Amino acid sequence: MLTITFDETSRRPRYEQLYRFIRDEIASGGLPVGAKLPSKRSLAKHLSISLNTVENAYAQLAAEGFIETVEKKGYYVLPVVRRKQPTPAPTPAPEQPAARPGGTASAFVLRTNAVDAGSFPFATWSRLMRDSLREDHTSLVRELHPQGDRDLRRQIVDYLAEYRNMHPAPDQIVIGAGTTYLLGMLTELLPKRKFAIEEPGYTMLARTLQSRGAPFDPVPVDDEGMDPVLLRLSEADVCVVTPANQFPLCQVMSISRRLQLLDWASERRHRYIVEDDYDSDYRYALKPASTLYSLDRSQRVVYFNTFARTLTPSLRIAYMILPPALLDVYLPRKQLYSCTVSGFEQRTLLRFIRGGHYERHLNRMRTIYKRRRNAFLAGLQPLVDRGKIAIAGMEAGLHLLLSSMPGRGEKAMVKKAAEKGVTVFGLSDFFHAEAPQTHTVVAGFGGLDEQALHRAAAALCRAWR
Amino acid sequence: MLTITFDETSRRPRYEQLYRFIRDEIASGGLPVGAKLPSKRSLAKHLSISLNTVENAYAQLAAEGFIETVEKKGYYVLPVVRRKQPTPAPTPAPEQPAARPGGTASAFVLRTNAVDAGSFPFATWSRLMRDSLREDHTSLVRELHPQGDRDLRRQIVDYLAEYRNMHPAPDQIVIGAGTTYLLGMLTELLPKRKFAIEEPGYTMLARTLQSRGAPFDPVPVDDEGMDPVLLRLSEADVCVVTPANQFPLCQVMSISRRLQLLDWASERRHRYIVEDDYDSDYRYALKPASTLYSLDRSQRVVYFNTFARTLTPSLRIAYMILPPALLDVYLPRKQLYSCTVSGFEQRTLLRFIRGGHYERHLNRMRTIYKRRRNAFLAGLQPLVDRGKIAIAGMEAGLHLLLSSMPGRGEKAMVKKAAEKGVTVFGLSDFFHAEAPQTHTVVAGFGGLDEQALHRAAAALCRAWR
Repeated sequence: MLTITFDETSRRPRYEQLYRFIRDEIASGGLPVGAKLPSKRSLAKHLSISLNTVENAYAQLAAEGFIETVEKKGYYVLPVVRRKQPTPAPTPAPEQPAARPGGTASAFVLRTNAVDAGSFPFATWSRLMRDSLREDHTSLVRELHPQGDRDLRRQIVDYLAEYRNMHPAPDQIVIGAGTTYLLGMLTELLPKRKFAIEEPGYTMLARTLQSRGAPFDPVPVDDEGMDPVLLRLSEADVCVVTPANQFPLCQVMSISRRLQLLDWASERRHRYIVEDDYDSDYRYALKPASTLYSLDRSQRVVYFNTFARTLTPSLRIAYMILPPALLDVYLPRKQLYSCTVSGFEQRTLLRFIRGGHYERHLNRMRTIYKRRRNAFLAGLQPLVDRGKIAIAGMEAGLHLLLSSMPGRGEKAMVKKAAEKGVTVFGLSDFFHAEAPQTHTVVAGFGGLDEQALHRAAAALCRAWR
Repeated sequence: MLTITFDETSRRPRYEQLYRFIRDEIASGGLPVGAKLPSKRSLAKHLSISLNTVENAYAQLAAEGFIETVEKKGYYVLPVVRRKQPTPAPTPAPEQPAARPGGTASAFVLRTNAVDAGSFPFATWSRLMRDSLREDHTSLVRELHPQGDRDLRRQIVDYLAEYRNMHPAPDQIVIGAGTTYLLGMLTELLPKRKFAIEEPGYTMLARTLQSRGAPFDPVPVDDEGMDPVLLRLSEADVCVVTPANQFPLCQVMSISRRLQLLDWASERRHRYIVEDDYDSDYRYALKPASTLYSLDRSQRVVYFNTFARTLTPSLRIAYMILPPALLDVYLPRKQLYSCTVSGFEQRTLLRFIRGGHYERHLNRMRTIYKRRRNAFLAGLQPLVDRGKIAIAGMEAGLHLLLSSMPGRGEKAMVKKAAEKGVTVFGLSDFFHAEAPQTHTVVAGFGGLDEQALHRAAAALCRAWR
């Protein structure tokens, strides 16, 4: 039986300690592939902890692809390569007639990038900004450090250690005005490399690489993440992935896929993985999965994250963590890149995180978005009950994937929705290369309150009945 | 005799109205090359204005290269091509012995990019930031416009119309986090073009172009600005110049040179001039010269300016004005470039300019820098009196050029200064290609107060006696 001594002084909850312990056992081979885990009840008894603690730990392990539940049998350690059977595509229905031109103006626009910026804590931010302007004069009148304010980088390091089990040095962090900006810088640090990007994925990413003259290939994702076989075939040197919450498919990259990608990277000296941890803070059931960065033993992961999404889009603060080999490329050139983020806002953000406001804000936003998601889901339930749509992407992020069960094409779905005043987006919009005609639309719920989402969902019920 | 009707309702002072009137007469050919202007006294009498007004107008025209004074004869309209005889180079002196290694730590570092950021109006900025955070919610929670806040762009347009005689549309302006960032974007709008940059000039500029893979040639500047013959020989498509105050030589580009560059640009459809108007606000005697942008009739000038230099380096707000043809390239791609400047700071800057604080701040800074310059000049006067150095670059900007009259090499000057605790920079540091050994060092005075500058100057007097 698994025996773990809990660290009573740790700030980590017990379920997380247990989860980490089992995860490390699996990673080290102490729990081999196919091994059966003790039942939840017996483990709880054995460790004298509550059943709930074990349940949470197992759920996290299952969500990250370390273990699987076999019904009425128990929990088993998963092999490194695991692939679910793809869901068979529904038979396409004939296309619907075109909506009348100049139809109803859209009352609800369900963008994936819409956020509830109205919840931004203006008063707190204003007070901390005032404190910075009054007290941080020395920092504020100096030429900015190209990598960003040292204290803020130290604060980010502390935050990552506490919440993401990541332990970079402050000097590995580069703060910049948005992930697009930082990605542009990265293409300069990795000249003449070929990039692999997720298909489907961010259109902006493809356009940024294109504008930088960086060659790239879209590599299809399956339900575990970027396909490693196709990645190899693409002969790319750098792959850019969203493991925490694949955009736009909203899936968590499985642990075996994570390890496969890390293997791929470690095989050649010039290979890197760019891990875009976008929206990792918006998971509704479980804590975010382990990052590629934290699993990486070969120092090939460049980690990206942004504060624009969690605070407000008009605040342009993102950062990347460079592994040592890339830091060696960056450091001699760093004077070339003046810091693009205002020192005033860096100091204010430092105070915001240090004072615990950021954590509280995230918790608050998670609750708000969870309520919004629930309201939207509840409103769409009639369509699900009547077998009209299937919904995916509920566990994380700020949008849902709505698939037509009778096999109505995405164009028809978009058109019908538009006729009822709701703007949704065909999944094919997120493809870089050939855009297949899918039966799925993407609907963001982050920007509308619960009442509006109820009304939007009701309109969709009328549109797709 | 010149006859002008003054606009009594205009906010422009009379001397400026007069200056503009004569400038336009010269430009239109109404006053041909070589024509003699009326004497200051007779024109003042003729127009019933004060002598002082005419003097100011003539001084401005002379500073911009429209007219010249011939001693005891009067003022004459200058021809389009005008070139002063280059000053003969002083005979080099033998190099000085090396300073002892690990010598005195530098007490005074005279960097060209140092500014008196301590004068930043923290209290005002803080108040306006608070007002923005309280009142501009709608603007602050929206996704930023890729070109920057519309109201701020309108405000910049008003400012440029009032102070720089420039009349772009708000939609031609792109706000970004620093001129380096914007220049990088410009290289993407002008792919495969060859750039010509000033030699000597900004090292950062060369490095930015290099990192973007943009081919470029350093083109020597003479005492009027970038050499147009060598510019043609370089076969560049885009030239980047600092006409208001050539960096680091501190000269105003002559009007004939301005017109020559504009002619060069208008000859081919794909040619552009990038006008970096850096430090144009720091002129001590006269108002800034007319910009290339305002003289341009073929819409080939991309104008750059920054607020980082005039406010504080930790505030990253710069902008560029795109001419219509480049706007046509930019607009379809604009969603590719998320705005890199925080909305909060854009709104605060808007309030800062609109409230007249920016103008007052600039006036105050001009006075502070003028005092610093005077203190530094006064401290260096003994060296001038003893024929040890000649000083240039006094009219504008935040640094001086100090040339050894006995022909001591720049390396020896730098070394001797370092021995006395003062860091100055050899002019050759600012060359991109072959770095000639000059007899000139560059000394920035912006970052030190008058007392420190007195002491730094005294140390230089000992170093170079």
